[in-house]
Amino acid sequence: MTDDLKELFTFLSFPSVSTDSKHRQDVRNCAEWIIRKLSAMPLTTELHETPGHPIVIARNKYQADRKTVLIYGHYDVQPADPFELWSSPPFSPEIRDGRIWARGATDNKGQMLAHILGVGKTLEANGELPVNLIFLFEGEEEIGSPNLAPFLKAHRDELKCDIIAISDTGMVAPNTGTLGYGLRGITCAEVKIIGPVRDLHSGIFGGAIANPATAIARLVASLHDGEGKVAIEGFYDEVRPLEAWEREMWAKVPGLSDQDYLKVTGSPASFGELGYSSAERVFARPTAEVNGIGGGYQGEGSKTVIPSEAFVKFSFRLVPDQDPQIILQRLRVHLEKHCPPGVKLVIEDGHDGKPYACDPHSNFGKAAQRALKRTFPGEPMLIREGGSIPIVQAFREILGVDTLLLGLALSDAQIHSPNENFPIENFEAGIRLNQALLEELAK
Amino acid sequence: MTDDLKELFTFLSFPSVSTDSKHRQDVRNCAEWIIRKLSAMPLTTELHETPGHPIVIARNKYQADRKTVLIYGHYDVQPADPFELWSSPPFSPEIRDGRIWARGATDNKGQMLAHILGVGKTLEANGELPVNLIFLFEGEEEIGSPNLAPFLKAHRDELKCDIIAISDTGMVAPNTGTLGYGLRGITCAEVKIIGPVRDLHSGIFGGAIANPATAIARLVASLHDGEGKVAIEGFYDEVRPLEAWEREMWAKVPGLSDQDYLKVTGSPASFGELGYSSAERVFARPTAEVNGIGGGYQGEGSKTVIPSEAFVKFSFRLVPDQDPQIILQRLRVHLEKHCPPGVKLVIEDGHDGKPYACDPHSNFGKAAQRALKRTFPGEPMLIREGGSIPIVQAFREILGVDTLLLGLALSDAQIHSPNENFPIENFEAGIRLNQALLEELAK
Repeated sequence: MTDDLKELFTFLSFPSVSTDSKHRQDVRNCAEWIIRKLSAMPLTTELHETPGHPIVIARNKYQADRKTVLIYGHYDVQPADPFELWSSPPFSPEIRDGRIWARGATDNKGQMLAHILGVGKTLEANGELPVNLIFLFEGEEEIGSPNLAPFLKAHRDELKCDIIAISDTGMVAPNTGTLGYGLRGITCAEVKIIGPVRDLHSGIFGGAIANPATAIARLVASLHDGEGKVAIEGFYDEVRPLEAWEREMWAKVPGLSDQDYLKVTGSPASFGELGYSSAERVFARPTAEVNGIGGGYQGEGSKTVIPSEAFVKFSFRLVPDQDPQIILQRLRVHLEKHCPPGVKLVIEDGHDGKPYACDPHSNFGKAAQRALKRTFPGEPMLIREGGSIPIVQAFREILGVDTLLLGLALSDAQIHSPNENFPIENFEAGIRLNQALLEELAK
Repeated sequence: MTDDLKELFTFLSFPSVSTDSKHRQDVRNCAEWIIRKLSAMPLTTELHETPGHPIVIARNKYQADRKTVLIYGHYDVQPADPFELWSSPPFSPEIRDGRIWARGATDNKGQMLAHILGVGKTLEANGELPVNLIFLFEGEEEIGSPNLAPFLKAHRDELKCDIIAISDTGMVAPNTGTLGYGLRGITCAEVKIIGPVRDLHSGIFGGAIANPATAIARLVASLHDGEGKVAIEGFYDEVRPLEAWEREMWAKVPGLSDQDYLKVTGSPASFGELGYSSAERVFARPTAEVNGIGGGYQGEGSKTVIPSEAFVKFSFRLVPDQDPQIILQRLRVHLEKHCPPGVKLVIEDGHDGKPYACDPHSNFGKAAQRALKRTFPGEPMLIREGGSIPIVQAFREILGVDTLLLGLALSDAQIHSPNENFPIENFEAGIRLNQALLEELAK
């Protein structure tokens, strides 16, 4: 195993699950490991406490005649459950079939370490970098980066830069340079329906007392019309229509056909908003998704109860120019209007992030395309991303800077799922890409 | 503590949860305890193996000139979870406020032991009983008595009797004699919606892949119309209309107003089928209830996934003359018709039982009313029950005999819920009622 892979294995072995309070110390241990690594390169490092998990900063010596590049990554990961579906333990990385298997392998530790090692190799070879570099790594991306925007505001001057680069998005096919210029936003909410003070016998009370599980199902069902469109009033009001060149390019991108989506996911049949391809649905159309639903008896066999309450966890993926807070407000109005009788509705706001799009044909955009061409064969593909990196919008709003998305994630990376993985060749290409990128951005 | 209460405490300490395979030995231990108790009275006892849990039979010596009474009870209980909502552990009985608190206190161990002790006291006092007695106790009532009907068929001759008595139903108010002459039937089903082969990232795939949790919610929502009526085609076709005397009597029964139902359950508001009182909805109208629903992330915080599958556990309470198998068939047709696109539907049948009604003004019905009058003040109340005892219909079909329901359960007994309880005075009255009942039935 190469030294680079050994480093990645160590990084992946921290169960840095940011949403779960019992992993708090693991997240911190992971941050401290990164600090030690960066200090040794050597870069000047800072560990910043937040009300949540720490932010790690590293930089080389500033020179006024160089461009300043900020590279962002996150060292926290999604929860790994259900554990029993993993072929190997999520926090004990393994190599099989040329891939590294572990929670965080792609999202985002593998890609983040490629940034670090690319910079490290340039430093090793040249003794210095062609740009002023700021590394900014956070531990709260998977819970919506609640403390990063305040941090950016508090440190606006020290974080002044010309361009930002992130590898936390998709590569459209193996060995295919991919530049992302847009992201969906997100807004989350958890809804509880409260009924009787305890679970009730469905024979003794059934028919006379409202069933919270039935009520929550009716609420969820009210969110879409019969054709898969979101039925919240005003939901599409601010949605920017697709441009003709986007539809043309995406039709040419490999791996994005309806059949490709079915093959990658194993879903039994195609699905989605009428009039759009799968790629268009994912890159440029908003959604309302149920991430979790629950209520009543969950065990083996049957238990004939009316549950005392039920919950649903929603996330909405948003596109330019939808605003998460406005969508959340419209959701509230919708839920209050559609809540069935006989129960109590409780809505709890979750994290959110604005959608994002920039111009891939700017000077920095062209530099990124050159770096991609030096690393991968063929012309880079220009895409938007279905996922959300809320902080990209915060970078634009607070630091006033655009972000280049140089994705290394394959569509079967199984991020946020059991058996997450990252090809060794993507890891190694990522390291080379970061060396080329600093050179091209410096021009 | 009286010896009778001590016996009940021992009986309640067995976690005889029939639906949960890990309690298999506990169920058997409970059956063997009952055998020892009955043998000592003394009665002739038999423990019959079944493919599931054992059936216990006990009888006195047969005399051709006496009527034969079969008394039925069940020694299995519902699961006790969620355990954290119990004020005292469910299988460590406690007395507080004049009540016994434990899983099974009312349903059915308290009432079943009242039968046994009533018979025991008559034997102690008189050396014999005024009737031929058959005790029939099963350990599978809470999972739909799958092995009792085959047992009745196989032992039809040895179980020949004139009338059956059961205490496993409700008493309309404390210290109020209550004769039940009808029961709702039940049919259960578990429905799974299968989508992608694993949980998916809702950003990377959301919009292009059907969400099983959304789909199951839409299916559940399709089961009712906007006014609370079940929307399955043909669901009400065989429902017998209420008789005028029933509506008049139930309007007089204490504790059955809409406000009473809200008070007992803590539900936030009234609910139910238009044109019926709460009592009528529960006693004589069918329902479609969700007993459990689940899918996707169930933990703390958020996890932005599209779940790979979702489930719902249904039970339908049925009234004369609905047939569980016909209703299940109509449910299948409904679910297949309403299943949203992009997912796979799997339907698994659960247990079922036919609804039941008999004439409360028959000779045996009148004898039961006399026994109730000897035990409790005032005229006995004649009601139907919202719950299901499928075996009552099996008794009628296989043994050709009607069943008297002499309920001792109060509406706040919290059966099937945390903090199940049984008043000591109901336990003691139940013992006296069983002594009077044998005398009156013998006349």
